[in-house]
Amino acid sequence: MKLAALTIFAALFAATAHAQSQPLPPAAEQAQEAAPQGARRPSGPLQQKLVPEMTRYTDEVLFGEVWPGSGLSPRDRSLAVISALIAMNRPAQFQGHLRRALNNGVTVVEASGVLTHLAFYAGWPNAVSALEVYDRVYTERKVDLAALQAAGAALPPIRPEGPAPDPAIAAVAPRFADLTDRVAIDSLWRRSDLSVRDRSLVTIAALTVMGDAELLEPYLRRGVEAGLTRDEIAEAVTHLAFYGGWGKATKSLEAVTKTLGSESSR
Amino acid sequence: MKLAALTIFAALFAATAHAQSQPLPPAAEQAQEAAPQGARRPSGPLQQKLVPEMTRYTDEVLFGEVWPGSGLSPRDRSLAVISALIAMNRPAQFQGHLRRALNNGVTVVEASGVLTHLAFYAGWPNAVSALEVYDRVYTERKVDLAALQAAGAALPPIRPEGPAPDPAIAAVAPRFADLTDRVAIDSLWRRSDLSVRDRSLVTIAALTVMGDAELLEPYLRRGVEAGLTRDEIAEAVTHLAFYGGWGKATKSLEAVTKTLGSESSR
Amino acid sequence: MKLAALTIFAALFAATAHAQSQPLPPAAEQAQEAAPQGARRPSGPLQQKLVPEMTRYTDEVLFGEVWPGSGLSPRDRSLAVISALIAMNRPAQFQGHLRRALNNGVTVVEASGVLTHLAFYAGWPNAVSALEVYDRVYTERKVDLAALQAAGAALPPIRPEGPAPDPAIAAVAPRFADLTDRVAIDSLWRRSDLSVRDRSLVTIAALTVMGDAELLEPYLRRGVEAGLTRDEIAEAVTHLAFYGGWGKATKSLEAVTKTLGSESSR
Repeated sequence: MKLAALTIFAALFAATAHAQSQPLPPAAEQAQEAAPQGARRPSGPLQQKLVPEMTRYTDEVLFGEVWPGSGLSPRDRSLAVISALIAMNRPAQFQGHLRRALNNGVTVVEASGVLTHLAFYAGWPNAVSALEVYDRVYTERKVDLAALQAAGAALPPIRPEGPAPDPAIAAVAPRFADLTDRVAIDSLWRRSDLSVRDRSLVTIAALTVMGDAELLEPYLRRGVEAGLTRDEIAEAVTHLAFYGGWGKATKSLEAVTKTLGSESSR
Repeated sequence: MKLAALTIFAALFAATAHAQSQPLPPAAEQAQEAAPQGARRPSGPLQQKLVPEMTRYTDEVLFGEVWPGSGLSPRDRSLAVISALIAMNRPAQFQGHLRRALNNGVTVVEASGVLTHLAFYAGWPNAVSALEVYDRVYTERKVDLAALQAAGAALPPIRPEGPAPDPAIAAVAPRFADLTDRVAIDSLWRRSDLSVRDRSLVTIAALTVMGDAELLEPYLRRGVEAGLTRDEIAEAVTHLAFYGGWGKATKSLEAVTKTLGSESSR
Repeated sequence: MKLAALTIFAALFAATAHAQSQPLPPAAEQAQEAAPQGARRPSGPLQQKLVPEMTRYTDEVLFGEVWPGSGLSPRDRSLAVISALIAMNRPAQFQGHLRRALNNGVTVVEASGVLTHLAFYAGWPNAVSALEVYDRVYTERKVDLAALQAAGAALPPIRPEGPAPDPAIAAVAPRFADLTDRVAIDSLWRRSDLSVRDRSLVTIAALTVMGDAELLEPYLRRGVEAGLTRDEIAEAVTHLAFYGGWGKATKSLEAVTKTLGSESSR
């Protein structure tokens, strides 16, 4: 699967070498016409003032092509992006995207469910760091907190004893084996505030931007079993290239191809 | 060692698939009884209000089971957690945990020694970012700064010339070889403000949460030579699953098993 | 190449074990003489007060040896360091280093070009988080924003259709293949605000501190083709050990050695 990435980059450099020997086309006016106008451009005034070169990628590509792109619903794009921003601990960017997620159809119960799930997969500090943003956005939306409490209450118990832990792991790290079986498997993944399909997408997004592509395999398989398609996953990872960086997406797409194959679209 | 992780996840998904077909037990009342009451619950009011589902994992599992768990002293748990939070650059969470570390028996000289050590292993920006928290906590504790100065003064010199650097590295990166030999080996690891056992634990914690499991081997061996047991290391990494995320701990435990074996507990 | 790193660490621990059995030399006075005096020391008053042991590494090694070191120009050191700090999302440290970069000869157009480039390679959130620092530094320098706008306007267009995407990637992630070809290759890398040599250095720095050493190969080759030497790259990565941590630099130097060889200096 390394081949896939290397092929992309080989093409990149071949084309770059070629491009460098050509005169750059005078694209300024064309660009001004193509870009959306005014303060409402997603790039915002600071970027427009200080890094004007970046704004066309922001306005025309990220918000002009990727967000409205086909192949993945806006709701699922939002679910992947808020998961990435929690896992990357970027509260400043997370705020706007949590609003966008609720606008795109992620429910409040699901949004809170994402945080519970990512406490395990991205760690408590990243989850806890997002709480103030949740507070601000839920308050401005006048979210029904009582309903949230009720949903939270309806969770499976954490049992004092779980299934017999895996003996190989139990030999080295018995508490990790026990917590994985009893708390992660037997409680977290059974919770009703987020579907298994969505949990898989949330986990894939977090592992992608955290650089843990080598751990993706079981979540990719589980996601497909629960209704995610390979095309949706590939589209989500592509979207996350703009959030976690091109490299993290490249590594993740290698894992997707290795696990789910590269035969014709499905 | 990949086997170990895959086995866990295979079990996870088998159990999840099974669990999904069962009705969820009505656990609300039970949960309310089991959880500690009032504002003193570790989960805190914001989490209780906004993400109620997460609070039982925080209160019952992380603070109810893991922190008081056997197999690793509270002092060593704190040492691992403050190392992780410095390496992850999470000053907001670091503040409470630096207080907790001092309460758990980490001395002020050791706490400052952790920062010096992690300047090398997690980088200067992460170390420098923690300084304001040190200032706040040391000030509120009325720490004797003169004693700290005296301890700091008693350090081995940085020599103008160190041992002959490794020729293979020296061919490509002579300054890196020289700095590693002369500054890291011949100065940092010889410093008396932190024992070699503790330096090993601090390094293992930082590399675990930074996702550098493939670099753990020499530090695991060194730690065991200096008195850490494999069980203590496994317990520390398990604890760090809650701070750096389940994936980082999984990769780290693979390295622990690969380097230190999986024969019966030791 | 793993050998190289293991050799270093084996040497490290052999020497440490030896050192531990020796009395530590009384180095205090010697240290006070050797260190630069007063508030102007790079370590700053907080570090001097709270973590005195760290200041000699900061003042004598990082700022006394590494920054003024031969083998890489101050301008290129700055280019690598600001790239690392943007990719690591450390705005507090980034501010001083952006000033230093402009002092060291990085132009304003190049500095803004770095951000555009890293939006792709380190992700939009990290790039956007740096904007306030740019605003503060550009404002205090009275930067000519009109000239920056003009430079930004002279960029190649983002074409509605690019070269035929790589078929293997296109099968799994057609949008990623298209964006890579059309936007990254055919637009970003062709931009005149940053040379291909500098883009390579910026990319190598970002991938190094983000822990993506396995993706370095094509950028190392491209950088050498565009005029970077292996010695310059090794010096840049050594410098970044102090910013991204010793482990990230170790992994990156393994990739440098693997890709560019370890024959005598070149």
